Amino acid sequence: MLKHVVKMRPNDNVAIAVHDLHVGDKIKGDITVNDEIPQAHKIALVNLAKGDAVLRYGVVLGYAKSDIQAGDWINETSLELPPSPDLNKLTYGTNIRKDLPKPKRTTFMGYEVPGNKYAGTRNILGIQTTVQCVVGVLKIAVDRIKQELLPKYPHVDDVTVVSHQYGCGVAIDAPEAKVPIREIRNIVKNPNFGGQIMVVGLGCEKLTPDRILDPEDINDDNLLYLQNYKGFEKMITAIMEMADKKLAVLETHRRTEQPLSKLSVGFQCGGSDAFSGVTGNPSAGYASDLLVAGGGTAMFSEVTEVRDGVDFIAQRIPDQPNCNKLVKEMSWYDNYLAKGGVDRSANPTPGNRKGGLSTIVEKSMGSIAKSGTAPISQVVSAGEIPTKRGLIFNATPAGDFTTGPMQLASGMGLEVFVTGRGTPYNLQAAPVIKVCTRTDLKEFWSDLIDINAGKVATGDLTVEELGTELFNFILDVASGEKPAAERLKLYNDICIFNPAPMT
Amino acid sequence: MLKHVVKMRPNDNVAIAVHDLHVGDKIKGDITVNDEIPQAHKIALVNLAKGDAVLRYGVVLGYAKSDIQAGDWINETSLELPPSPDLNKLTYGTNIRKDLPKPKRTTFMGYEVPGNKYAGTRNILGIQTTVQCVVGVLKIAVDRIKQELLPKYPHVDDVTVVSHQYGCGVAIDAPEAKVPIREIRNIVKNPNFGGQIMVVGLGCEKLTPDRILDPEDINDDNLLYLQNYKGFEKMITAIMEMADKKLAVLETHRRTEQPLSKLSVGFQCGGSDAFSGVTGNPSAGYASDLLVAGGGTAMFSEVTEVRDGVDFIAQRIPDQPNCNKLVKEMSWYDNYLAKGGVDRSANPTPGNRKGGLSTIVEKSMGSIAKSGTAPISQVVSAGEIPTKRGLIFNATPAGDFTTGPMQLASGMGLEVFVTGRGTPYNLQAAPVIKVCTRTDLKEFWSDLIDINAGKVATGDLTVEELGTELFNFILDVASGEKPAAERLKLYNDICIFNPAPMT
Ligand SMILES: [Ca+2]
Ligand SMILES: [Ca+2]
Ligand SMILES: [Ca+2]
Ligand SMILES: [Ca+2]
Ligand SMILES: [Ca+2]
Repeated sequence: MLKHVVKMRPNDNVAIAVHDLHVGDKIKGDITVNDEIPQAHKIALVNLAKGDAVLRYGVVLGYAKSDIQAGDWINETSLELPPSPDLNKLTYGTNIRKDLPKPKRTTFMGYEVPGNKYAGTRNILGIQTTVQCVVGVLKIAVDRIKQELLPKYPHVDDVTVVSHQYGCGVAIDAPEAKVPIREIRNIVKNPNFGGQIMVVGLGCEKLTPDRILDPEDINDDNLLYLQNYKGFEKMITAIMEMADKKLAVLETHRRTEQPLSKLSVGFQCGGSDAFSGVTGNPSAGYASDLLVAGGGTAMFSEVTEVRDGVDFIAQRIPDQPNCNKLVKEMSWYDNYLAKGGVDRSANPTPGNRKGGLSTIVEKSMGSIAKSGTAPISQVVSAGEIPTKRGLIFNATPAGDFTTGPMQLASGMGLEVFVTGRGTPYNLQAAPVIKVCTRTDLKEFWSDLIDINAGKVATGDLTVEELGTELFNFILDVASGEKPAAERLKLYNDICIFNPAPMT
Repeated sequence: MLKHVVKMRPNDNVAIAVHDLHVGDKIKGDITVNDEIPQAHKIALVNLAKGDAVLRYGVVLGYAKSDIQAGDWINETSLELPPSPDLNKLTYGTNIRKDLPKPKRTTFMGYEVPGNKYAGTRNILGIQTTVQCVVGVLKIAVDRIKQELLPKYPHVDDVTVVSHQYGCGVAIDAPEAKVPIREIRNIVKNPNFGGQIMVVGLGCEKLTPDRILDPEDINDDNLLYLQNYKGFEKMITAIMEMADKKLAVLETHRRTEQPLSKLSVGFQCGGSDAFSGVTGNPSAGYASDLLVAGGGTAMFSEVTEVRDGVDFIAQRIPDQPNCNKLVKEMSWYDNYLAKGGVDRSANPTPGNRKGGLSTIVEKSMGSIAKSGTAPISQVVSAGEIPTKRGLIFNATPAGDFTTGPMQLASGMGLEVFVTGRGTPYNLQAAPVIKVCTRTDLKEFWSDLIDINAGKVATGDLTVEELGTELFNFILDVASGEKPAAERLKLYNDICIFNPAPMT
């Protein structure tokens, strides 16, 4: 059976066209289509009077400018916009769901890391860098480590250079330098590195070890400066000797059964299309709900994308301090963009409107959909490690290759990435599961996509069924199964977010 | 014979201690040392009355606060500072040198590139990227290109991915987005890529081809989008097929004798120490003078480092328009740093003072020294391609791994990097020559340093002799000889300068 429309929430009065709808088509059995409605656009499910609220995702997208009949096309010309959310007048705690769906599976096979809030999903030697200058030497050293040392340690999954473009030539004491420094500092602590600290620096960089390591971790067992070694060969030897010791410790680690409270999953969407908010993100949201109900941690992010749905985020925050933190983070970003001369009123773009996104609220709700329906237990700054479990809003930028490293810093053991257009993005430090929004992308990129949320649009699966399939795959991957991009060894750079000046 | 002090310019009234000087030591034959003077600090060569100008690099570092005797230590406590240079009151054209030293060698063996202002020093396939998302796939493709294709093309030096962290998740229409976009656009045109354009994109990124390619270059022969290929293997095949065609063209290229007017050299310093401005940079400056006198192009950069010597730069600019451009670029940077909350008054740092740099002017003059004494024929924005030849001031940031890619964008065929503390920094797209400032670094890093400017401090060579040695090595490397870091294949990332917001 082919469904023609998707309704997102029980009280919605519009649905989304899965294919182009034509005048006279029947949907939901009894509604006749009155207009030519493009794929992914909205159709009215009931008669609406002028001034009535138009509801999608259970929220008000706008108010009917004139009377609307069931079967009519609803687009940006049909809607009076709701007032823009004022950051200083947010209401919190009005939408706290208590009856989250419970997952059947409540454990995964992970690597316990003493002192770490989370368990690792992989057992990786992560060689951290203080500065880009050392990367050339490190790349050669890591090639040799992989060839000469890694075969001795069959229980270690991989060796990676956490190389970045920060560390020197930057305003290290500028107010916003705290953002990249916190990110690098916390990436060192990611559970997938098994608690082993290995940092390679140059020796004259601005990013000194005290900025990224705890005092007790700053010692010659963990930290190596190239300027202290007599030439290239000695550098390589020193790096390999330190790596050998760290690998020997990692080799003793084994997967053990871990409760979901030891798992942190980052959710993201990118290369989005009109179905991201219809199939992929809602399914990811259901998986997120299951994870949270089971005691795990789910992070969502992407400040610029969710900004115009901020009031719906606030409603899911139970307490004033976290609502204040949300306001602070959103205000910081508003100010950052304004200072850089960015025009926020350009949203939704003409492309978005053509894709069926009539208002900025609708666009934001599509992104927020991947956070499911759970209450938000904590709002954290970009790259901060949460102190709570449950659903976390991690206030990072929205760029596909910027958010992931930020979530790594916050403790992410694996990432779920929902994509409409398709991206081969992946991280070496944590597996990335790819969820596509349309069946044709799954068929086109069969070797790059793990989960096809397009089945929701075709009616083959419900959001709940697809979300459960994704949840189970998350636990499989957390336990060692390799998603497509990990099998192919597609690794992106660690792209650090630096809002402070370069010097 | 061991010299004890180095005098920078004929009319200087101070010199620099090569080693710690002790009370009673004799220097320059007839001057007796009156104080304990640390290495790299200044000693008075003549008696000075209160208010007399103290001259180093031929410029006023400050005015004597009280009477000074020949042999006295001069440090920050001895000097009344000259007024800070006002960008709106710069005088240009007052120091235009006409009698530059002429080089004996006037050609090199380079790769002529039709339509390019400069000749290549290498014959490299540079695979450009529009966005970080594609880098994972490209790294695998390039490994295969190197193994399976490159051996067929013995006249091609290398294949490199010009990978960067820009392209999406950025405010692409923000006013300052022009900086990273210009940089990427012009890197594509670097002469070392032999005029062959190969760009790999994803398909939904913000950095569209029209932003980085000329209209006539946007076609299927040059541009490949991963989203158009049915899965990973097809992507790899497509990349390899395009690379094969480009490599076949590059294979036909041969080195031919080129005039110096076809050579552009970027000069930089990093990991600087107290001798950078005494030995390494002045020697680089002499090589720069020879290159300019021979009709070539020498670029110097590093706005934040030269900022406080801006009036001495202006004096070497013959014309009003380029002086105006200098003011505009410096003002832009002042404003950029101020917006980011950077405190410029932190210079010179306590470390700088301890190293003998008494004033911000002295610090700047050390950096400017690598530009030699030639008139400045053009001031260009960061990443802009000069329209003139000769000495170019390229207004880039000063970070070691930021300046190089910017100079690549401006057409640099090779880089000269002066280092005090030592850095393994290198680029894959252009060879980098390492000049060290002290003999002990050359001995310590014998396999990483090409030219030892420490011989100037020990009196084994004059600045002119060492500068000539460097000039000759520049031409050898431009003609194909490999400097140390190229032999070792130490490659840093292409770090793009993006002063606009991330979104
Ligand atoms: Ca610790
Ligand atoms: Ca997104
Ligand atoms: Ca994203
Ligand atoms: Ca410098
Ligand atoms: Ca530098």
